[in-house]
Formats: sequence, structure tokens, C-alpha cells
Amino acid sequence: MSKKFVYFFGSGKADGKAAMKQLLGGKGANLAEMTNLKLPVPPGFTITTEVCDLYYKNKKKYPTGLDEQINSNLVKLEKAMGKKLGDNKNPLLVSVRSGAAVSMPGMMDTVLNLGLNDLSLQGLVAQTGNERFGWDAYRRFINMFGDVVMNVPHEEFEHALQTIKTKYRAKNDTDLNAAQLKEVVSEYKKIYKKFTKEDFPSNPKLQLKKSIEAVFSSWNNPRANKYREINDIKGLLGTAVNVQAMVFGNMGNDCGTGVCFTRNPSTGENKFYGEYLMNAQGEDVVAGIRTPEPISHLQKTDKKAYDRLISIRHKLEKHYKDMQDIEFTIENEKLYMLQTRTGKRTAAAAVQIAVDMMKEKLIDQDTAIMRIEPQMLDQLLHPTFETKALAKSKPIASGLPASPGAAVGQVVFSADEAEKFYESNQYKNIILVRIETSPEDIGGMNVSKGILTARGGMTSHAAVVARGMGKCCVAGSSSLKIDYKTKSMNVKGKTIKQGDWISLDGSAGNIYSGKLPTMEAKLTGPFGQIMKMADSVRKLGVRTNADTPADTKVAVEYGAEGIGLCRTEHMFFDHPGEKPGTRIKPFRQLIMVAEKVKLLRESLESAKIAEEKTEIAQIEKELAKPLKQYKEALAALLPLQRKDFEGIFKALQSRPCTVRLLDPPLHEFLPHDEKGQAEMATLMNLKVSDIKRTVESLHEFNPMLGHRGCRLGLTYPEITQMQVQAIIEAAINVKRNFKIKVHPEIMVPLIGTVKELSIVKEQIQDAIAEVFKAKKSSKQEIPYLIGTMIEIPRAAITSDEVAKVAEFFSFGTNDLTQMGCGFSRDDAGKFLVDYVKMGIYEYDPFQVLDQAGIGKLVEMSVKLGKSTNPNLKVGICGEHGGEPMSVKFCHRTGLNYVSCSPYRLPIARLSAAQAVIEEKRAKKKK
Amino acid sequence: MSKKFVYFFGSGKADGKAAMKQLLGGKGANLAEMTNLKLPVPPGFTITTEVCDLYYKNKKKYPTGLDEQINSNLVKLEKAMGKKLGDNKNPLLVSVRSGAAVSMPGMMDTVLNLGLNDLSLQGLVAQTGNERFGWDAYRRFINMFGDVVMNVPHEEFEHALQTIKTKYRAKNDTDLNAAQLKEVVSEYKKIYKKFTKEDFPSNPKLQLKKSIEAVFSSWNNPRANKYREINDIKGLLGTAVNVQAMVFGNMGNDCGTGVCFTRNPSTGENKFYGEYLMNAQGEDVVAGIRTPEPISHLQKTDKKAYDRLISIRHKLEKHYKDMQDIEFTIENEKLYMLQTRTGKRTAAAAVQIAVDMMKEKLIDQDTAIMRIEPQMLDQLLHPTFETKALAKSKPIASGLPASPGAAVGQVVFSADEAEKFYESNQYKNIILVRIETSPEDIGGMNVSKGILTARGGMTSHAAVVARGMGKCCVAGSSSLKIDYKTKSMNVKGKTIKQGDWISLDGSAGNIYSGKLPTMEAKLTGPFGQIMKMADSVRKLGVRTNADTPADTKVAVEYGAEGIGLCRTEHMFFDHPGEKPGTRIKPFRQLIMVAEKVKLLRESLESAKIAEEKTEIAQIEKELAKPLKQYKEALAALLPLQRKDFEGIFKALQSRPCTVRLLDPPLHEFLPHDEKGQAEMATLMNLKVSDIKRTVESLHEFNPMLGHRGCRLGLTYPEITQMQVQAIIEAAINVKRNFKIKVHPEIMVPLIGTVKELSIVKEQIQDAIAEVFKAKKSSKQEIPYLIGTMIEIPRAAITSDEVAKVAEFFSFGTNDLTQMGCGFSRDDAGKFLVDYVKMGIYEYDPFQVLDQAGIGKLVEMSVKLGKSTNPNLKVGICGEHGGEPMSVKFCHRTGLNYVSCSPYRLPIARLSAAQAVIEEKRAKKKK
Repeated sequence: MSKKFVYFFGSGKADGKAAMKQLLGGKGANLAEMTNLKLPVPPGFTITTEVCDLYYKNKKKYPTGLDEQINSNLVKLEKAMGKKLGDNKNPLLVSVRSGAAVSMPGMMDTVLNLGLNDLSLQGLVAQTGNERFGWDAYRRFINMFGDVVMNVPHEEFEHALQTIKTKYRAKNDTDLNAAQLKEVVSEYKKIYKKFTKEDFPSNPKLQLKKSIEAVFSSWNNPRANKYREINDIKGLLGTAVNVQAMVFGNMGNDCGTGVCFTRNPSTGENKFYGEYLMNAQGEDVVAGIRTPEPISHLQKTDKKAYDRLISIRHKLEKHYKDMQDIEFTIENEKLYMLQTRTGKRTAAAAVQIAVDMMKEKLIDQDTAIMRIEPQMLDQLLHPTFETKALAKSKPIASGLPASPGAAVGQVVFSADEAEKFYESNQYKNIILVRIETSPEDIGGMNVSKGILTARGGMTSHAAVVARGMGKCCVAGSSSLKIDYKTKSMNVKGKTIKQGDWISLDGSAGNIYSGKLPTMEAKLTGPFGQIMKMADSVRKLGVRTNADTPADTKVAVEYGAEGIGLCRTEHMFFDHPGEKPGTRIKPFRQLIMVAEKVKLLRESLESAKIAEEKTEIAQIEKELAKPLKQYKEALAALLPLQRKDFEGIFKALQSRPCTVRLLDPPLHEFLPHDEKGQAEMATLMNLKVSDIKRTVESLHEFNPMLGHRGCRLGLTYPEITQMQVQAIIEAAINVKRNFKIKVHPEIMVPLIGTVKELSIVKEQIQDAIAEVFKAKKSSKQEIPYLIGTMIEIPRAAITSDEVAKVAEFFSFGTNDLTQMGCGFSRDDAGKFLVDYVKMGIYEYDPFQVLDQAGIGKLVEMSVKLGKSTNPNLKVGICGEHGGEPMSVKFCHRTGLNYVSCSPYRLPIARLSAAQAVIEEKRAKKKK
Repeated sequence: MSKKFVYFFGSGKADGKAAMKQLLGGKGANLAEMTNLKLPVPPGFTITTEVCDLYYKNKKKYPTGLDEQINSNLVKLEKAMGKKLGDNKNPLLVSVRSGAAVSMPGMMDTVLNLGLNDLSLQGLVAQTGNERFGWDAYRRFINMFGDVVMNVPHEEFEHALQTIKTKYRAKNDTDLNAAQLKEVVSEYKKIYKKFTKEDFPSNPKLQLKKSIEAVFSSWNNPRANKYREINDIKGLLGTAVNVQAMVFGNMGNDCGTGVCFTRNPSTGENKFYGEYLMNAQGEDVVAGIRTPEPISHLQKTDKKAYDRLISIRHKLEKHYKDMQDIEFTIENEKLYMLQTRTGKRTAAAAVQIAVDMMKEKLIDQDTAIMRIEPQMLDQLLHPTFETKALAKSKPIASGLPASPGAAVGQVVFSADEAEKFYESNQYKNIILVRIETSPEDIGGMNVSKGILTARGGMTSHAAVVARGMGKCCVAGSSSLKIDYKTKSMNVKGKTIKQGDWISLDGSAGNIYSGKLPTMEAKLTGPFGQIMKMADSVRKLGVRTNADTPADTKVAVEYGAEGIGLCRTEHMFFDHPGEKPGTRIKPFRQLIMVAEKVKLLRESLESAKIAEEKTEIAQIEKELAKPLKQYKEALAALLPLQRKDFEGIFKALQSRPCTVRLLDPPLHEFLPHDEKGQAEMATLMNLKVSDIKRTVESLHEFNPMLGHRGCRLGLTYPEITQMQVQAIIEAAINVKRNFKIKVHPEIMVPLIGTVKELSIVKEQIQDAIAEVFKAKKSSKQEIPYLIGTMIEIPRAAITSDEVAKVAEFFSFGTNDLTQMGCGFSRDDAGKFLVDYVKMGIYEYDPFQVLDQAGIGKLVEMSVKLGKSTNPNLKVGICGEHGGEPMSVKFCHRTGLNYVSCSPYRLPIARLSAAQAVIEEKRAKKKK
């Protein structure tokens, strides 16, 4: 005997059940489950997904025994319905629907009203006493079968229908009467024959067989393949096929159909929610030609059906322990359940439902935590566009959803101008549009509501800074042709000028012209509860990436247990409200003389070695002026940066703070365009040519791999010295003046070998010792740590050595991915999309940590590091620290904490809790 | 009793021996050895290097017992000499000299004539009967002791001497008579007192103690520290101190002194070689005031001494089994040996001596092979400047010795112009001077004698290409200020214009103005013998990096066993002699339409999925023209590249050839300057704005990590297809037309994950299958392999996966170093020099493979790769393949071959042989 290929459901019991989703598909499994729950499900049977697999393996032939099993189940079905397929008196009509284990709405084929032919049509008319209904059902069947099963162009049927409608001056399909529909059927049959070279098949079993095969074939149609690719659906055998007795909601006024959710899928409110239409088919509810009624009205229309529905609602929720999305049909006052499945919901609803169901004791805490997709929380933390407005609008272009939220504002193409317009109150709502942004643009970004760039990926400068600021950003929208000269951009033929309003959806990566209405984000009660629950479960610490007191405060509100990455580069740029040049002027002064100072110092050293006294004197004389400028610049920056750190330390309220020493290459602090250079020359009383020469001499072919990170400090140790002095003095001041403990963790970026770290560590220790001495302080008062970022592959693979000198590691997985995979995050956007499409990477490695590659480096580094320094503290501060799968990886790898931008903290907290629960569940399974 | 601190030598026997170099220093050990050999060595004693170490550990105090040991050895010495230190009749004079285990010439201090005071001076005068000699010795001693031991400024003594010389109108020191020298002594004593606040010490034992301490102190003077740093001298305890009886070559005409080599250190000829001067001191031979006589003349002057010297020469060579560098003094007809040490030699001499000594059975083959420093072979393979001319010239600037050899030519600042000038015969000897070079400059580089760049490191484009071409190159000479506009450069104030002559020393990295005379390289007989010997010993294969038939031929002559890296990018640029645009024009045409083709193809795919028929038709129409241009371009390139491969395969004469598919980013093939773009526009009948737009759209922030390598082929598979077709068709043609077997190994560059390789491998296999089908060929006829470069860290750490798909790995250690260490080789020159100085890297990791880091990645990759594919063939094709230490690492790591530029092949062959011998010797030791 052959394997069981077909599972029957009906008459109060079913062969299958909900747990058999892989075999029966989601639809089939739930139909079986509902049947077993004694819910009124039209009977039918499910052909398994295994058959689909065999069908393909068998060169698109039925496996042996399938025909027999279908036949015997069909007999069972006819018996259950008391009807017969193709019967001219009491004909059984069936639907043939696809249904994979994972829902793929609209991707595969469906055939309805199967079983109709010229004879059974008479039976249907007799049964229903409704001739028009009969002919309408028939013409729909021929159209659907022809289109779906036999590939007859749908337009041909449409065209014929239109001709007849014109002929009878019918506006809508519903205006056609029985006779006219009969004419349609006749035309349809002709079309069918024309294209298939055969008559429309009157044998219902042939109809069935061809329809089942069509559903199997649709599993591999390009649309379905694409859908699975896009939605990352993998490892399925195929689709199941559900053959089910038809019930009709459009047979009269005692008929109807509806779609409901057991709770409100938008808010999560525990209230039955949905819509229905009397005398209508399922698609009518969705299509929007007639406006459906809210489900509560059904009480009045059909109290019996409504009450039954309410009781089913409770039964389903109690059974499935989750909010259900259901479809029903009322045929001649009889309620039928056609589908139930776990309902999709907004983030707000997910949180509300999880908390409510836990209170209702439907689920336990772990389940409540697992119910929420961490990524969804983004929706709760940023303003969003009103759903309805969004549905009606068409984006003019799209890019990467680089930083979530909604922003509406007037376009400005320069960061400087954005600041000017903002300060002069000319524009208050600004969208800064740039080809790409650079650290100079910080001020302009800060006054903008949203940022839009034509170039750059999810971790481009614009994206990273915007996320840090919690500002909406769409990055890398390559169809924008931005022209700075004319202050305009061309978007697929449409010109947008400075001052024009646009709307950015940073969560979806869409750009709209004009102003779209927005809704503000709220941290509602249940959200806080979920976070509390997550915190009680998770083991991984959660820190934030922040470099201003304001960001720090937000982060603490969002649950940050400290700062994992305090970037210091912005402390060299003017802050909003400061006199222009306050910081950048002295720093640029330093940069202008830095190389000269370095070269002269080297010459001096050589001269000293050679004991050439006159040369020594001469060099010392030459060095005096630039050295003075160099030191003056640092002296000017020191108090400002000390103040920055004081603000941050205060906001942290005794939480630890990992401060990264200056990281970007110096050329990022100089203007690269002629205008900027001219301005700088005027402001600083320098020659433009000198500025140009310095910019040129600092130019690098691959700045990513250039003179940055600890390399800067090794060349210009005084910068490190100043930064450390600012940090430690600030710590002492905050401790003494506000009685707030400070735990500075000084982090050396971009080390490749332990020797770099040893040298810089010594510099740091010397600088600290000096401050301690001057301030009569000690490590007891300011318990500092010195550690390093692990972001160069070499540092990862030699971490045993590095850990001998470092007190902590923080994985800079952005750069580790860049160097480990050989991608420049500013450029790779161009081909990474294709790479993910081709399956070369499962996800964009800048968004989701590449566990098989970069993750291996991280694991290796942790293991090696702890082998020589068991007390090593290990965290991650790359953008991955706020991405759920990556956070879970960090938990599994034994990291102490993740650090992410403030707005991603709830995601990290939830993910970390889920990681614990997943681990627990996996252990149980073993 | 305390440890033995002092080792005596004299009277025919010594406490020490040659093997005790670490303890006695090179000088002391060899003095002991010579004494034991019964050679006439003035007696003396050596204070060990351990004492130096203890002296520093002991806060610069003598260790206990040292005083006593010195005293007892001094007594022994006085006895051996029959003289007494400080005696007024028969005074013993001694020298006090430093001597570490490794020679550090001139770095540490020496005191001569020690033991003189007012009394012993009388004894010296009485002994020698030469009053002038006595006073001269005395004043020299005071000067030396004052300067070296007591830090009295040397200029003070010079000044006093000058004053007296002026007073007596003496031109030279030798013009001063005894009385005048006595006056000098008196002045010197005053100076001494003025600066030291004490009288010149008349106690010879105090003189000795202070001198010994001075030598110890000189071990750590800045010069000596610098010298050790530069010469990478590590792990020494300190310096020994040699106290030795003085002998004088300047006491009369029966006295003399000389410096000799037991063989010719320049040619290696087995002939006594050296110079001497009668009535002279050691420094006179070197100083060049008097012209020394060739040593053969000594036969006439002092036959007895000469014969003795010849017999000593033989004795020493037989004993040391190597060429010796000796110093001798004749005092009153008596020959004394003052020093012997292994003599430094040129590469030619090293080879000649090794081969000769093997023939003489002085040494065995292994020793002969080990005797030659592989790096030195460079000297034998490139023209060099005449040694004498070089000695007289001062470089105007220096840079990195990027490609060895000597080149003399006229300066040209543009590659295009270089080609024009060359073709028009305006200049035949050109030095191409660029800020940096790019692939467009290949033509200009090709017609130049040498290349000079202001930027870039040892593995910059200029350096790599120059080495490949065997052309001299000095790279990264940062003091050049090049101005393309005025066609001139400023070098430390001096202006050099187009057409001016300069000379480049690529082996030393020096630049000279004007024309320096050169010598051509010769591959002499013994060189060939050594190579043959090396080949018989080595296990590592040796291949070459070559991409032209000419280079291939040279490489085969130099012993290449195949091509390990055939770059294909130059096949897209015009070759010398081809009509301008032959290749670059079609390729640029392809680049101009490539992106459009890609975008339209994607739209087409989407439209097909959406089944939008009118859109499909429209896109297909739009695609037609660019697609035609795209395919035409490839069709134009195919026959040209096929011809290139045919030439290479023929030159290889059945040796295997690893061909790397196109690697550089496409923008490298477009002109970046306005002029070039205008020219391209005219030539190709395009708008400049279109070219500009394409250049801009291809611009990358970090091209090193950009759209290149296999990423190109994934986006534009037709390029891969064309290249593979050209390779396989060429292979078939060469096989069929010339009966030469071809073993193409197709190499996919820059893979980061196995999936990239799988996809490209399939493309390659499809392309091959097509050619095989068309040509009725098969893998049997053309046994090809498909493999990959391992140059991205991720590929190295996931090599178990990669090796499942690859048939061979070739380590691209240049890029692996760039990404693994986070250095851009075009930029890192700026700070890598400092990094090596600071000891962060022991060597520039682009020159010498960073074994602790990048080497670890290589080892990991080999191990992982072989774990899943035991037949995996593994090689290296980075620049390290020709560097001795790296080659030895490759041997130890179990690689199958190294590949390097043709001119480095002999180095690789010798290094590979030495690796085997070193391994054998290390095993023996265990």
C-alpha cells in the first residue's frame, strides 16, 4: 500500500491536526484542527506537501496510489455532503486551494466552483432556485480554470465580458442577468477552445486532476519563487492542496461572508474585530466595491450566527492561545468556518496581546516574551505616518530604511544652509538631502527632521549618525540625481527644489512628495511591562552608543545600563549653539601644523643622535612656532571636551562609560570643496593653497584602511593625552561636585597588534597618572579600565596576545565586517543587494552579523582572549548590537553586553531575553 | 670565588675560543682563537659581555671580583710582554676596545695608547728612541681619553691643535715636531682640567678602569641603540671589552699595517687581496691621506712578513672555512695579527666563494647554499651603478627601494608623453616620474628605464608593476613636490624639469641628479651552479608572476616552473605597438553601457515576474542597443586576448599557468582627468558629460574593498565568459598547432564566501563546456583546474567550505595583509615606517609576511582547506613569494609553491633550499 497522501476532514473529525503544518500546510492543518474542535468546517481533504515534492521529483506526474486515495476521499466527501460531483440534481462543488507551511498570500493558484458543467449547472440552479447565481458561478469557473489551469490569457475573458456588458449597456457585472451570463459562458467556452484546442472539460474528475496539478505547478512559478526569496522562506517541501466543499455567501440575503480577528490587530484591544457583507463572496469583502459592515452589526442582522461566531472566537483563542485571523461564510443562515490562522498584528498590538494573554493566564511569561518580534518594536519608538494616508500615497522613490521613523520637511541640500535656515527661522522642518554626508554635516543633520542621501548603505555615515540621533533617514536612494549647484534634485523626471516639502518613511525606506500626516510614538504601559519581563530574563547587558548628554538621557530612559561606545569625533566639531569655529578652528589649526611638527621632531631626533649641535638648535628654532600652535589648539579643546564628558557622566548616573579615543582620519575634519576651503582660509587667516596642500597630503586612496584609530594617537600622542586628561578630569569633577560615581572605560580603536595597544596604554596611563597627581586623585576614586576595540581581523586572531594588555574588548563589527569580508560599507550597497538576492550572503552583513564568517572571528577572539585573561570583559558596539539575530548570537557567544543606538535598546533587551528562552527550550528538547 | 669574568689570551694559548662569541664578543673570541692557532697575536684579555649586563643591572658598578680578575690578568699580560703598565723604562701600553657578538663598526668607544703619563712617556721615548712618536702618542691618548671617557668636547682639542698648527705654520699634524707636540700635550691637559675639574689621571690603573667603564657605557649610547634598531640586532647581553698590548706600525720604516681579505671580496676570486702602508697606523690605511699599496707589493718590501701572512691566510681559511677579513701590524719587522673575522662580500663574491670552497672540499653543499643571503642575489640580476661613482655621489632624495636595479634617464612626468617621446625618438632613456601610477600608465612605464613616485609603498601599483617588468623603481619619495602643470618637481629646493637627467638606484632607494655610470648584470657560472644545487635540495615549487610572453620567457630562464599569477587586466589596455584604442576603446565602450545593461536586465526580470507584457516588450526594445554594444565590445576583445594567452602558453612550454580573472574595479579603466575624458569623448564619439557621469557613478570611497575581483564577474558574467573562452581556445590552439601541452588553472579572485566561488565556477564550467563542444575538445586534451585566491580574511577562516569547491588556493598575501591588518598599501607608507621603528611590526608587513598575524591566517586556511579537500594544491602569489623569510615560512606551512616576479625567482629558489636545510639542521639539534 502506498503512503498516506491525503488527509480527510469533516463530519466532526479529521485525519490531521494543527501540528502537522509541515505536511498539510498551514491552511490544511488548521482546517483539520478546527474540524476536530467540532467547529462547522465544510468538509474536504488535504493532499500533502510531500506529494508536491514527489510530483516534481517524478517529472510532474502523480505518485503511485495518489489517484486512488483522492478518489476514496472524494467518495467520503460526497457522503459527508450528501452531494455528488457533477450530479445534475444535487451537485457537489469544491474549491481547490494551495496552502504551504508558511503563508504566501496570493502567490499560488486557486480554483473555485469546480465540478460545474452543463449538467451539474442544472442541479445547482435547481438546488438554489437561483438561475443567475448558477450561470454566474459557471462563467467564473470557466474563467478561473482557463486562466489558472490552462494558461488562457485572462484578458481574453475580460474582453469578451466587456463586449457583452457594452452590448447590454451593463455598467457592472452584477447588472447582467441570467440569460446574458449564459451568453458569457458560451463566449468563454469558445475562447477556451481557441486557446487550448480542446473543449472545456465536462468531466469533473478531470477538472479536479488538472486543478490539483495546476496548484502544484504554481509552487514554482516565478512570482512564488520571488516571494520565497524576498521573504527568506526556505526548507519547505512544497505546497499542499486543499479540496473542500464550496459554501456560498452570495446565494441570497440569508447568506454572507466575513473576515475577523479575535482581537484588534492594530491596537491589541481584547475585542472582536472584523467586517462582513451579506449576500457576498469572500473577495467582495476585500475588494472594496461594497463597504463591509463592522462585525458587531452582525448581532442585528443574524444574531444566531453572531453568537456562534463569538463562542468560536473564544474557543479558538483558548485552543490556539494566540490571536486568530478567521474567515467565515454564512450559507442560508448556516455558519461555516473557512480558515483560521495566527493573525498578523502591529507592534503595539503584539505587545498588548502578549501582556493581556499572560494576565489571562493563556500563556506564560516566556511565551509572552517570545511572541514579540524584536524588530517590530522599532514601530513603537518612532513617529510613523498615518496608516491610511500611507496606503493612499505612492512613493516617488525609495532607498534603504536606514533609520526608522517618519519625517516631513522642506528640502535643503547643504548642511550649512540647513543650520542657517533653521537659526533664522526660515524653515523649521528641514529634510537634509545630500549625495552623502560627512562629519562636517553634523550640525546640519542635527537641525533637520530627517536625512536623505543618494549614496551609502545601512551603515553609511548618514545612517549611523541618524540612528544615533534617533532621526529618520533614508540612505542610498540611487535614483535621486542631486545637483548642488542648482539646489535641486531630479527624481525619475520630477524636479524637487530647495524648500519643497517631502515626507520620508525611514522605516520602509520610502520618499513621498508633499506632506503626509504623522502620528507620534508612545511608550504605552504594556510595552514597559514587556521590557521589565525581558530584563528579568536576559543575561546579556545592554548599553548604548551615545556621545551627548541628550542622547545619553534618552538611552537611560530606554534601559541603557551604560555607554558601550562614546564616540569622541563630534567633540572636535562645533556644537549647536556654539560660536562658529569654537572647536573646529583650533582643531584645524592643529591639523595644519601637525605634519610639520611630526617631521621636525623626527629631524630633531636624528640630529640629536648624530650629535649635530647647530642643526639641533636650528630645528628647535623652526619647531617653536608650529609646536606652540599645536599645543594651543589642544589647550583650547581641553576644557570644552571636559565639559562634554561631564555632561555625559552626569546623565549616566554612575553607569559605566566606554569612551573611544579619536578614530576618523584627520582629513575628515577639513573642508574638501573649494568654497569650504576658501571660508576656512578667511576664518583662520591662512592661504587657500596651504589648506589645499594639507588636504592633498592627507588624501588617502582607501581611508577606511588609512591613518586613523590608534594610528593617529601613535603619530600624535598629544591628542590622546588631551582626550584622556579631559575624561579623567571630568570624572573627578563629576564625582566631587555631584557625588556621582564615574567608571570611565577608555577604548583604543583600530588596533591590529598587541604592541600598538601596549604603547597607547602606556600613553594613557601616563596621562592619567599626571591628572591623578595634579588632582590628588587615584584609581580608587576613579576606577578606570583600559581596553580596545576588536575591529581588525588580525586583532581578532591574535586576541590571546591582545588580551594580555586589554582589560576589555569591544567588537567593532562594522569595521570587522568591512575588513573581514572585504566590503567598504560606503560602496558595497551597489552590489550587496544582488549578493543577498543570489544567496551569497543570507542577509546584508552590515545589518545582520555574518555569523559563519565574522561571527567565527568574534568567537575565536573571545576564546583566545579569555584563555590569557579570564576576567576580560567583552562587548559589541557595532551596529549589530541592536539587531535581534546578532544580539542572540552575542548571548550564545558569551559576551557581557551589547551596545546600540538609544532607539534600538528595547529591541536589544527583548532579543537578549529571547536568546535565554530559546537556549532553555533547546536544552529541554535535548 | 666569583665567576670567570676575564679571559686571557697570549703566549700561544687562550682561555677562550671562536665558539664563545656570545660571551667574548666577535673580536675577543677570534683573538682567542687566533692565539690558540699559534698566530702572532699581541697578548691581552677580554672582559665578558656578561659583565656588561651585570654592570647595567648593578647601577653601573663593577660586579664583585672583577677588579681582582682584571688585576691578575694585567699581571699576566705584563709578564707576557715583559713590560709594565706605567713603567718609566719599559712601559706597557694597551688598547681598550669594545666588541659585541655582532659587529657594530664605529658605534662604540675605543681608547688607544692607554698607560701613558709623564713618566711612562719617558720610557716609551727611551724604548723607541723616537721623541716625536712618544709625544704624538701621548697627545692622542689625552684627546681620546678626554673625549671618549670624560666627555670633553672633541672640538676643544681640535681647536687647540689648530691654534698651535697656525702658530708654527704647520699644514698637517705630521708637520709638528716633538717640542711643538709637547706644547699640544700641555694645552690638552689644561682643556682636560677645565672641563673635568680635575687633573689628567696619571695612574694607569685608574685610566684603565675609567676606559673599561666608558666602553660599557657606550653600549647604550643613542648611536649604538639606533644601529641595533636599524640592523635588527636583538638578544645580546652587551659588549665585551678587549684590553690588549699595543703594537705600533708607525714607529719607523720597518713598521707597517694593513687590512686584507683572504679572497677577493668583490669578485670572490681565490687570491689574497688587500692593502698596506709602511710606517703607518691602522686608521691611515682607511683614511685615504696616503695611498696604500696593494698587498702583493709587500713581497718586495718585507718578504718575510709577506710569506708569514700568506701562510696565515691559508691557516685561517682552513680553520674558519670561510673568507676572512684580517688586520695586521708589523712592528720593527715583527708581524702581529690584530683581528680576523668573516669578511663581508658582494653577492657575486659570495656565490663564487661558496662554489669554490665546495670544490676545495672546505665546505659541503648544504653549507655552500646557506652561505648566500638570498636577498643579495638581487644584485646579480639587475644592472648596478659603478661602486666608485656611487661612493662619490650624494643622493638628492630617497624613497623606498621598490624594484632593484639602476636606471639613468631623462625625466618625464606623464605616461602618455613618455610614450610619445619614446616613439618619436626624442628621448630614448626615460625616467617616468609620477605622484603615483595607475593602470593607464602601463604604456608609459613600459617605455621607461625607471619609475619614480612620490607616493605609495613597496607594493604600490608602481612598485608591483615595475618589479613585474624588471624595471628599476623608487617609490614613495615623499620629499618630491611634483607639479604636473609646470612639468617640474622640486626636491628639497632644487628644481628638476622635464628632460633633465637623473639616476635611480632601485636597490637602495636613492635618487641622484645627472648621469651615473652603470654596470650590466651577468649570470655568471657559479651562480648557475648554486641555483642547480638549490633546486636539488628544495621541495617548494617556484613559479612566476607574469602576464606577457616576454616576461614568461625571462621567468623560465630564471627557473620558473610555471606561472603562479597571470594577471589579465593589462590585456584590456592597448599593448605597445598596437593602434591606440585597439583594446581600451571596446572595453571602455563596455563600461559605458554595462550599468545600463545591468539595470535594464533587472527591470526585465521584474517585468517578467509580474507578467507585464507591454513593459517586457518596451524594456527589451530599450535593452537592444546597449546590449549589442556590450557584446560587440567583448567580441572585439576575445581574439586579442586569445592571442595573448597563446603567446604565454607557448613561452611556458607545457608548464602550468594560473590565470586570474579580471580583478581591478572598472573605474581604473576610465580616465579620471578632464583632459583624458575629453580625449576619450572625441575618440569614442561620446559626450564628456556621459563619461563624467559614468566615472562618478563608479567612484568608490575605498576601491580596495569595492566592486572588483569576482564581484565584477558576478555582476557582468559575460566578461568572465569571454576571458574563459579566450583561455581555453588559446590552450586548444597551442596544443594542436604546436604540440605543446597546456595546463590552465583558472583562478577566481577576491572571494569571501564559498557561494561566490560556486556561482563563478559554474559560469566558468559552462563557458568551458561551450568551447569544448565547439572545438570538439575535452578535459583530457586540456586538463584545466578551477581554484581561487585566498585574499579576504573571511575566505581564509572559512577555507574548509571554500576547499569543497576549489581545486587550488593561491594566497594573495598583499590583499590578505591589507584587509587582515587594515592597511591600504597605497597609503600606509606614511606610517608603516614609524610602525617598524616603534617595533609594532618587526618588518613592513608588505615586504615580509607578518607570520604572527597574516601567517596565522594562511596556516589556518591551509589546515581547514586540506581537512575537506586533501588534494588541494596551495600556493602563494603575493609579493611575499620572492622574499626569503616569507618563502621559508611557505615551506614550513606546507605550501606547494611560491610565485614571484621573474627577477626574484633565484631568491625564491635559494630560500626554498635553505628552508629545507634549516629544517634538517633543527631536527638534528633535537
